[in-house]
Amino acid sequence: MNTHVNLDNFDVGYDIPAKPGMDEADIQTPCLILDLDALERNVKKMGDYAAANGMRHRAHGKMHKSVDVLKLQQDMGAAIGVCCQKVSEAEVFARGGIKDVMVSNQVTEPAKIDRLARMPKLGARILVCVDDPENVRNLSDAAAKHGTQLEALVEIDCGAGRCGVSSSQDVVNIAKLIDAAPGLKFAGIQAYQGAMQHLDLYEDRKVKLDAAIAQVGDAVRALKSQGLECDIVGGGGTGSYYFESTSEVYNELQCGSYAFMDADYGRILDKKGKRIDDGEWENALFILTTVMSHSKSDKAIVDAGLKAQSVDSGLPTVFGRDDVEYLKCSDEHGVVGDPDGVLKVNDKLKLVPGHCDPTCNVHDWYVGLRNGKVETLWPVSARGKAY
Amino acid sequence: MNTHVNLDNFDVGYDIPAKPGMDEADIQTPCLILDLDALERNVKKMGDYAAANGMRHRAHGKMHKSVDVLKLQQDMGAAIGVCCQKVSEAEVFARGGIKDVMVSNQVTEPAKIDRLARMPKLGARILVCVDDPENVRNLSDAAAKHGTQLEALVEIDCGAGRCGVSSSQDVVNIAKLIDAAPGLKFAGIQAYQGAMQHLDLYEDRKVKLDAAIAQVGDAVRALKSQGLECDIVGGGGTGSYYFESTSEVYNELQCGSYAFMDADYGRILDKKGKRIDDGEWENALFILTTVMSHSKSDKAIVDAGLKAQSVDSGLPTVFGRDDVEYLKCSDEHGVVGDPDGVLKVNDKLKLVPGHCDPTCNVHDWYVGLRNGKVETLWPVSARGKAY
Repeated sequence: MNTHVNLDNFDVGYDIPAKPGMDEADIQTPCLILDLDALERNVKKMGDYAAANGMRHRAHGKMHKSVDVLKLQQDMGAAIGVCCQKVSEAEVFARGGIKDVMVSNQVTEPAKIDRLARMPKLGARILVCVDDPENVRNLSDAAAKHGTQLEALVEIDCGAGRCGVSSSQDVVNIAKLIDAAPGLKFAGIQAYQGAMQHLDLYEDRKVKLDAAIAQVGDAVRALKSQGLECDIVGGGGTGSYYFESTSEVYNELQCGSYAFMDADYGRILDKKGKRIDDGEWENALFILTTVMSHSKSDKAIVDAGLKAQSVDSGLPTVFGRDDVEYLKCSDEHGVVGDPDGVLKVNDKLKLVPGHCDPTCNVHDWYVGLRNGKVETLWPVSARGKAY
Repeated sequence: MNTHVNLDNFDVGYDIPAKPGMDEADIQTPCLILDLDALERNVKKMGDYAAANGMRHRAHGKMHKSVDVLKLQQDMGAAIGVCCQKVSEAEVFARGGIKDVMVSNQVTEPAKIDRLARMPKLGARILVCVDDPENVRNLSDAAAKHGTQLEALVEIDCGAGRCGVSSSQDVVNIAKLIDAAPGLKFAGIQAYQGAMQHLDLYEDRKVKLDAAIAQVGDAVRALKSQGLECDIVGGGGTGSYYFESTSEVYNELQCGSYAFMDADYGRILDKKGKRIDDGEWENALFILTTVMSHSKSDKAIVDAGLKAQSVDSGLPTVFGRDDVEYLKCSDEHGVVGDPDGVLKVNDKLKLVPGHCDPTCNVHDWYVGLRNGKVETLWPVSARGKAY
């Protein structure tokens, strides 16, 4: 099953890397494959965790950019909707039938504000973040023009060092403007601590999140003292969700990478000092690649290079193998160290990408596998939707 | 003009970042823009250079992945056809009307060999590279099955450290197999020295290319002594084409990045010690980005992060500005240092990408500009065609 694409007229190779029913061995590479069993276990686990801790989970769609994965997160993982980072991503999710869509980011260009303000007409609740008083006026004008309502959250910079205001006074000032603005509804606080998610040690992450929670808690109290209640206090990622969940300040999680995992997240350590890809979350996403040349005895050349992945957070690892190692890459080639010469031309390897989000963004399809067979193809629906 | 896409029903924002006729200021960002005047000057200059030096120029389509840019290179830059790295890219160029298409890479998977062997039926000359005797047999069987002819070159590893054989004896052995194989025609040698292209100093690059030229020349002579003539001795890149052109060994260039330029290539030095983006080639490709937040006085947050570019070869530079600097990025955000606070929300910047090839591969469109107006939109026709 997938949401909306008929694969019948698609040409394997030119249009798509595989078709449902195919053996795993016949998939054309490089492409993204999903271990559907592992994905479903990850999705269910996070949904169960959020429910057990009294948290809503708004799954982060900017990681996978897929309406199909988001629907799985709603159906099996109790997700209440989606957050994403761009108006064009939000359009894909809203057009794809998701009913609660947050742009967890600023929208400032006039044309994009106009697109955002039209979006509630698709039948979805639309939320956006603000860190600037003038932006409140512009969002309000657009919503009034289109006769719609946008819900707006004040974004707090609690350590990510990007967008967001810092002081509780600034939070209150912008929240009041939102509350008074026609066409807008004050919805709460967006406070994602991005910079700490990849710190290796649990205790180092805790120190950063404790500070964020204190800052956000102060803002929530300042708002309350002015009669402004937060429907949403949102944040949290794969490296921090247990801190937000037990904070008694946050009420919505926004995790993304847990569903697929990647090599950079996988190496951070849990409370017991164990890698999080060793028990907490399973690798469900892989780049399937094929050996295309082995003219040097100790090196195999594979067909996945820079155009099949992003290496911003490091090179991929070879899943389930300690006898070979992905050493470097150029645009269309990867060099795999094969000191014992165990690989041969046309052998396939499963790579765990260094960073899942931008890696998914170069592919058009997820090939979903179960028991060695292609079960489904899901389009990366919001691929390239950066504007 | 563009080759085959009717933009009339496309929605600016959701489908495309701009429409022809728009002012540059109204383009939705982040997106790729092309300075068409600069692009045309680069294309014409390389065409003129190749002609003046008695070289054919087979433009490298894996850089831009665009049928439209390739046709410009044929029409204004005397390109005789295209080379590219993947069967799916070759299919895009052949279906797009390019008549001379080389896969400058190995094709080993059975399904891909089958696709390749069918491709001459599209009316194009199809060439492929080989570094393995068994691959010769498989290519021959597929061409015979489809009643087509593939032209095959022996790939030499002359320093790139990827695919290719090293000794002239291996070159001769494989060439003889090709020459004797039904459905195949021996076409010559593919010898791209990739590893030296980005060495800063001209003299350092010359040392590497001199060695490559000696190696390739030896192979050409060894083939000749066996009665095997090379129609093509191909290679050369933006950091080396003047060496191959004057080698009296090579007869085809395969340059890519010269047409667009990027920050990593731009900083290498010519014979006189001057950056190659300061006179030799112009920056024609930019990532247009918008300031979306400026809540810290000394930092502007722009909307182009990892999903609008590849940072494998370094961060982008801000074109034409020395008062601001692109400092770091995350998936959807870039942090621009603005020490004097000169930027404001919704200001636009033109970024020169660190590495053009994989940056083009995350975008669906080139927005072609002339005199401050959008003149055309070209699809990145072979975007994502990695298999």
